[in-house]
Amino acid sequence: MESGDNGGFHPLDEKSLVEYIKSTPVLVSRLGGQAELDHLTIKEVGDGNLNFVYIVTSPKGSFVAKQALPYIRCVGDSWPMTRDRAHFEALTLKEHGRLCPEHVPEVYHFDRSMSMIGMRYLEPPHIILRKGLIAGIEYPLLAQHMSDYMAKTLFFTSLLYNSTADHKKAVAEFCGNVEMCRLTEQVVFSDPYRISNINRWTSPYLDQDAKSVREDDELKVQIAELKSMFCERAQALIHGDLHTGSVMVTTDSTQVIDPEFGFYAPMGFDIGAFLGNLILAYFSQEGHATETNDRKDYKDWIINTIEETWSLFEKKFLSLWDLHKNGIGEAYLPDIYNNPEVLLMAQKKYMNNLFHDSLGFGAAKMIRRIVGIAHVEDFESINDESRRAICERRALNLAKLLLKERQKFDTIGQVITAIKEGSVE
Amino acid sequence: MESGDNGGFHPLDEKSLVEYIKSTPVLVSRLGGQAELDHLTIKEVGDGNLNFVYIVTSPKGSFVAKQALPYIRCVGDSWPMTRDRAHFEALTLKEHGRLCPEHVPEVYHFDRSMSMIGMRYLEPPHIILRKGLIAGIEYPLLAQHMSDYMAKTLFFTSLLYNSTADHKKAVAEFCGNVEMCRLTEQVVFSDPYRISNINRWTSPYLDQDAKSVREDDELKVQIAELKSMFCERAQALIHGDLHTGSVMVTTDSTQVIDPEFGFYAPMGFDIGAFLGNLILAYFSQEGHATETNDRKDYKDWIINTIEETWSLFEKKFLSLWDLHKNGIGEAYLPDIYNNPEVLLMAQKKYMNNLFHDSLGFGAAKMIRRIVGIAHVEDFESINDESRRAICERRALNLAKLLLKERQKFDTIGQVITAIKEGSVE
Ligand SMILES: Nc1ncnc2c1ncn2[C@@H]1O[C@H](COP(=O)(O)OP(=O)(O)O)[C@@H](O)[C@H]1O
Ligand SMILES: Nc1ncnc2c1ncn2[C@@H]1O[C@H](COP(=O)(O)OP(=O)(O)O)[C@@H](O)[C@H]1O
Ligand SMILES: [Mg+2]
Ligand SMILES: [Mg+2]
Ligand SMILES: [Mg+2]
Ligand SMILES: [Mg+2]
Ligand SMILES: [Mg+2]
Repeated sequence: MESGDNGGFHPLDEKSLVEYIKSTPVLVSRLGGQAELDHLTIKEVGDGNLNFVYIVTSPKGSFVAKQALPYIRCVGDSWPMTRDRAHFEALTLKEHGRLCPEHVPEVYHFDRSMSMIGMRYLEPPHIILRKGLIAGIEYPLLAQHMSDYMAKTLFFTSLLYNSTADHKKAVAEFCGNVEMCRLTEQVVFSDPYRISNINRWTSPYLDQDAKSVREDDELKVQIAELKSMFCERAQALIHGDLHTGSVMVTTDSTQVIDPEFGFYAPMGFDIGAFLGNLILAYFSQEGHATETNDRKDYKDWIINTIEETWSLFEKKFLSLWDLHKNGIGEAYLPDIYNNPEVLLMAQKKYMNNLFHDSLGFGAAKMIRRIVGIAHVEDFESINDESRRAICERRALNLAKLLLKERQKFDTIGQVITAIKEGSVE
Repeated sequence: MESGDNGGFHPLDEKSLVEYIKSTPVLVSRLGGQAELDHLTIKEVGDGNLNFVYIVTSPKGSFVAKQALPYIRCVGDSWPMTRDRAHFEALTLKEHGRLCPEHVPEVYHFDRSMSMIGMRYLEPPHIILRKGLIAGIEYPLLAQHMSDYMAKTLFFTSLLYNSTADHKKAVAEFCGNVEMCRLTEQVVFSDPYRISNINRWTSPYLDQDAKSVREDDELKVQIAELKSMFCERAQALIHGDLHTGSVMVTTDSTQVIDPEFGFYAPMGFDIGAFLGNLILAYFSQEGHATETNDRKDYKDWIINTIEETWSLFEKKFLSLWDLHKNGIGEAYLPDIYNNPEVLLMAQKKYMNNLFHDSLGFGAAKMIRRIVGIAHVEDFESINDESRRAICERRALNLAKLLLKERQKFDTIGQVITAIKEGSVE
């Protein structure tokens, strides 16, 4: 490795990656040893927006190499972005993996100077969940798995489980991921609500809708409150980018990748991201319906998955709380919250607040996918633009309602009702 | 200075302080030069709970030397406490002093290895505000000055004024003041709500009242919410201990000292601390009334000061916001919140939330002063215990009301009404 200003950094390609592997014993052994290195297949598959992802396979093993370059991949070097996001991605993968190994790929290797993560290759038939949702594939365990992942990662990194001493140490460390937070602040909480030349939408159909987002004072006051909460509140170590493109699935397996936005922030940001993207998937189904497949059953499955994800999350999160109620978690000390009545009251209040936060953040994530810079393939793959715009408008209107009126929703059932009503308007 | 495990630290006394001064040019010059060093007067005046404070005067100058020892002064070395609190006190004094030099003593010198701050001596007739309130002295500029201090320090260290990049850097740094935060968490948010052998109250009079605090489920759920907010929400660089014992006053001057609990936390914690301690002063007046001075006028003055402090704070805070609305503060970007209607809505919502936070935190600070470890001289100086208990009970009941019902108060006028009602029950 060369050194210099970049501390040894150089962008990898298929060729230099082989050299890199040769000098990295842990990766060599993942491939089955030196003898296999002459039989490698390397394929760049990064379909994501930010980074480069190489699948490395040998006859006896495999891994994925993900490298961050000092800019945003899909924009190019006109939008610089710290390579150190890889450091925070590796930290979060390791921490979330420790807490929920079933649903997070193992990290084999991390090289901070090269901004390179070596991790488990999620072999086929794993595909990106979003693609499965577009294809109309049901994942019967998805709600089960995702609620498990969210309950564990969020509970165990919160003050319900930890001392404030450990918490503050971790918060301070993750403050270093500021550039990624700033990207979220801009593209989720700001750009959709102002004129910005990186915004786009299905024009001219949604011109008026985009304008109405920018001119909705109540919406803007609400988004400001969520933005401040996102910037100020270190509630748990969140994934930070938990849309359906950050989840890889088979019928049996659910794996969460790509936590490079990992940061101590409100839990509702993760829950909302996931639920909000499921809602987008739901609203896109009309656009994928054909004469032979009206997608009605599939819409029902999505609806059930939304409902179950929240219900199971709530149940599991509260079970963890009950299980650890005598632990060192400092938010609710056992000698104060030691009787069933007060614990029940506290839990009810906590979950109610978390529910409203999740609806707010989820709605914000929906809005930005329709009138902001980064759109979702669920809608983009609907070729007929007028048809796409109808789906998007319905989703946008529901999101506006959720963002503004979230306090009025008491149960996920009420949200489901609103989704259904919004999809036939 | 000796070195060793303590990195040169040694506790000062009147004698070693002279040696220390001699080797510290900036302090020598504050005293008027070498020639004055033979004519020093040194007096230890620390009446506070935690640290040692020396007033150093020469015929030509003066300063105050404050040193933190590795334990809590009023408890002794059985309660260890990091000396590095002095570092965070110095940081906060400098930052708040930069933002509001009129009301913060100048820092002349800071020695981290000695945990020693050299600062302006607030010469007589400056006294601790709490003592003035007990003596029944009116300070006509107090509300003006304190609202000024709070508006400036809180606004200018918040995201209304700063970029999230600068904010996160500062937040990470102040995470280091974790031990002081933990002290607050324990004595403000936990101990009063559980049996703890460091709690005390005017017994036996308040035995039942203390018990009722520990058994009030709704109160306990509310205090948990405030505790989490205190631990998680990095809204602004707060003083962290802004009671009336941290303010020195004359008729013309108001100076805020002792920000060793400085930390990024909810603004309402400072505002509430100050208002809550004024309310305690108010409720203590009955105990200080004599046949020749019924304290009625003085109670009116305190009430007016409470009302004015909030009203002026709100006005000044909003003026700063208006003034800097086109700046780089990232909570409300100008190109989104650029019209008078939406700005007004946003400000109204912000101030309403801040008002409720302040009431909640203020109430928490009142409660802990009546049934927790550290009491206030306002009540302690009422010798007749049954009379004292009556005053304390009224204050406690009001505090419980404020904590539980704070969302129902829309204006400071309504709070004033509740205070008045609570004082004649
Ligand atoms: N561990 C993995 N196993 C298999 N494929 C992966 C793995 N990690 C990433 N990928 C593939 O690479 C794509 C981009 O990865 P991702 O981590 O989302 O990068 P980005 O940060 O650029 O969005 C994913 O959509 C997926 O197709
Ligand atoms: N700058 C100062 N000028 C004059 N007196 C001061 C000054 N700083 C502190 N004191 C006196 O010392 C006392 C204790 O100081 P304080 O900073 O509150 O210490 P502690 O952290 O121990 O509470 C104050 O109540 C006040 O009487
Ligand atoms: Mg990705
Ligand atoms: Mg990514
Ligand atoms: Mg079916
Ligand atoms: Mg003090
Ligand atoms: Mg102090």
